[in-house]
Amino acid sequence: MEQLSILPVAGVQWGVSYAGIKASVVDADNASTNQIPKNDLALMALAAGTVLSGVFTRNAFSAAPVKIARNRMQAIADSSNQKPIYLLINSGNANAGTGAAGYAAAEESCQSLAKVAGCDAAQVLPFSTGVIGQLLPVACINSAAPTIWSQLSEDGWSQAASAIMTTDTVPKGFSRTVMVDGTVVTLSGICKGAGMIRPDMATMLAYVATDAAIAQADLDKLLQDAVQCSFNRITVDGDTSTNDACMLAATAISPVALSPSHKDWPAFQAALTDLFIELSTSIIRDAEGATKFITINVNQGRDIEECLQVAYTVAESPLVKTAFFASDANWGRILAAVGRSGLVNLDVELVEIYLDDLLICEQGGTAQSYTEDAAMKIMAQTDITITINLQRGDIHQRVWTSDLSLDYVRINADYRT
Amino acid sequence: MEQLSILPVAGVQWGVSYAGIKASVVDADNASTNQIPKNDLALMALAAGTVLSGVFTRNAFSAAPVKIARNRMQAIADSSNQKPIYLLINSGNANAGTGAAGYAAAEESCQSLAKVAGCDAAQVLPFSTGVIGQLLPVACINSAAPTIWSQLSEDGWSQAASAIMTTDTVPKGFSRTVMVDGTVVTLSGICKGAGMIRPDMATMLAYVATDAAIAQADLDKLLQDAVQCSFNRITVDGDTSTNDACMLAATAISPVALSPSHKDWPAFQAALTDLFIELSTSIIRDAEGATKFITINVNQGRDIEECLQVAYTVAESPLVKTAFFASDANWGRILAAVGRSGLVNLDVELVEIYLDDLLICEQGGTAQSYTEDAAMKIMAQTDITITINLQRGDIHQRVWTSDLSLDYVRINADYRT
Repeated sequence: MEQLSILPVAGVQWGVSYAGIKASVVDADNASTNQIPKNDLALMALAAGTVLSGVFTRNAFSAAPVKIARNRMQAIADSSNQKPIYLLINSGNANAGTGAAGYAAAEESCQSLAKVAGCDAAQVLPFSTGVIGQLLPVACINSAAPTIWSQLSEDGWSQAASAIMTTDTVPKGFSRTVMVDGTVVTLSGICKGAGMIRPDMATMLAYVATDAAIAQADLDKLLQDAVQCSFNRITVDGDTSTNDACMLAATAISPVALSPSHKDWPAFQAALTDLFIELSTSIIRDAEGATKFITINVNQGRDIEECLQVAYTVAESPLVKTAFFASDANWGRILAAVGRSGLVNLDVELVEIYLDDLLICEQGGTAQSYTEDAAMKIMAQTDITITINLQRGDIHQRVWTSDLSLDYVRINADYRT
Repeated sequence: MEQLSILPVAGVQWGVSYAGIKASVVDADNASTNQIPKNDLALMALAAGTVLSGVFTRNAFSAAPVKIARNRMQAIADSSNQKPIYLLINSGNANAGTGAAGYAAAEESCQSLAKVAGCDAAQVLPFSTGVIGQLLPVACINSAAPTIWSQLSEDGWSQAASAIMTTDTVPKGFSRTVMVDGTVVTLSGICKGAGMIRPDMATMLAYVATDAAIAQADLDKLLQDAVQCSFNRITVDGDTSTNDACMLAATAISPVALSPSHKDWPAFQAALTDLFIELSTSIIRDAEGATKFITINVNQGRDIEECLQVAYTVAESPLVKTAFFASDANWGRILAAVGRSGLVNLDVELVEIYLDDLLICEQGGTAQSYTEDAAMKIMAQTDITITINLQRGDIHQRVWTSDLSLDYVRINADYRT
């Protein structure tokens, strides 16, 4: 398994364990010799004094752990908590669509960990990801609690990135550093996700931390803004998950305190946004079955909503996605998707569509500059940008998506992924 | 090629021809011996005095022929036209995304036919279906005009159903008869479509005719109502086409005149609706790569809009569709789709989900009655009904869809389908 280079963040420790929720699997690299289980449990320990912010899925069938974590977040923020906080994350089972029994199981897992950690269960936030509709095997987690507690380490980020994976093919984690008042502030984050991806005011599972001190209200705003141009701008299949969560922690171990009035706040915010975009686009690069990474720019719209309407209609059109899989410059499908996106009084004569820098459609038809050769050359690339100029306003939005491949269907037609 | 049993309708003639728009193809049944072209041009001739109604795509990039046909329909209705009307339909090229040149090409094709028919071009309505963004090879149609004119026959329905096909694997045509005042009234229709299917106030190409006499306003209302519970309730991939059109003709050759006050109007309307449902669901049965025919009932909603919101979110979820392809009772994906469909204040505890008659989900979790065996038995069927009870109103809606298979991707990843 690839080792990521994620910088430790003072005040953050990670532990991992194999609890037996995922079926035991052979590591591809050691298939002939060892039966190595993939870890399926991760624990993030945040030092006392950490300020924590979070955004969660808006799927009405939000999972039991999401409901519990959301409530505890609120209580922790209200109480100006000065105790450690523990984030207990399992993969292999989403504990969603599990009713009252699922809620009780999530509670029980937190209590097990709290017992080992010697804290109150109110300081433990549960997260789950995996198959929906099957009860969480909480006994496995109870048994693994002492092990995972003993594993806690500041160097555990990379292993945690692997432990939270489901259909992901690569672990995802990145870091940034920013110099503030002569001190290096660190930002590190991991995330998971490859399918059922269309975050809505939240994301797949993502955990980001900094050692700077940041007040709750400022941290909340930072997270909201960063998510709006990263996790909330990606789609694989339009399917918003029941378990999305994105957490941002400021441990305050660094002597650096940051607030919007600080001269280095813009640099810090830029680094954070950059990290969020790298994390979220890494999900698209690892999208189930994906062979293409497609950036969709919608420019000159009247408002954010209509730009996103066009961008997501194109991004989620099965016909557009299969054309990209085929590396076929079938731009009529992009045009048809723009046309059906529901914009009021759209003047199609004004719409311009580009593949990278090649203008392919204008005045309702093929652009003068279009040649089949030039278009096919662009379509052969892995990374392709579609730009749609609406010429009816000055708002622009950017969304990332993947193609729809035979492997996407194979992966999702596999029994109970 | 399968011969359909479509009843002739007095006052309606069809001609077909191979104009050379589709690439010449080998008939599978005669691959070794003959190079038989599939026809790509059809002409529907409606007797003088016919009343014609139509609904068209609301895609903003509507094709050139759609714009022309829509305008002429209006003029014909306004003038109480007493002349024959000709519907000239080509497959193999959609003449959409073709700008001013495409508009001129569609006009020219009508003029060629008008010359042969000895009528005004205003009496000729053009329709096109096929690849988007390539100019219509109008010279082919001009050359074929005399041939297709000479082929007109009351028995041409079945051949026409084949000539309008694109990625369809079977021609689609059906009939109904209704006894009115001791006279048999006939209703026949054909349609085409297999991909880029999510009609919006219109349909794929569909042509339906009756020999009864029906006034324009009554015919318009009949068509609107029939489309609302048939063509406007199907989806393959959510991609509303640029070329959708559904035409309904009443030739008035029969002595029977029908209006809403006639005692047999309800029976006639029921037969018409039934025919429309058979036509539209035949598109789903022939959906690109489809292996399943899925009916989605959403019951007990507050209004039509929210029922459709839930139904289409489930119907177009790639994850739901691939689970059906795999015959996997992964109902968590249905639950997740209902949850993300955007209903305000949805009480998920009240939602019930059925596969056929098996209650699989209630109170936010697995239903008591659920067994893996029973669910898998249902999933193994070709025809499956999903029923979702929202328990918050008394409105219900029904939508039909197909699964997402490897063949769907293969078909649409083929170069320029």
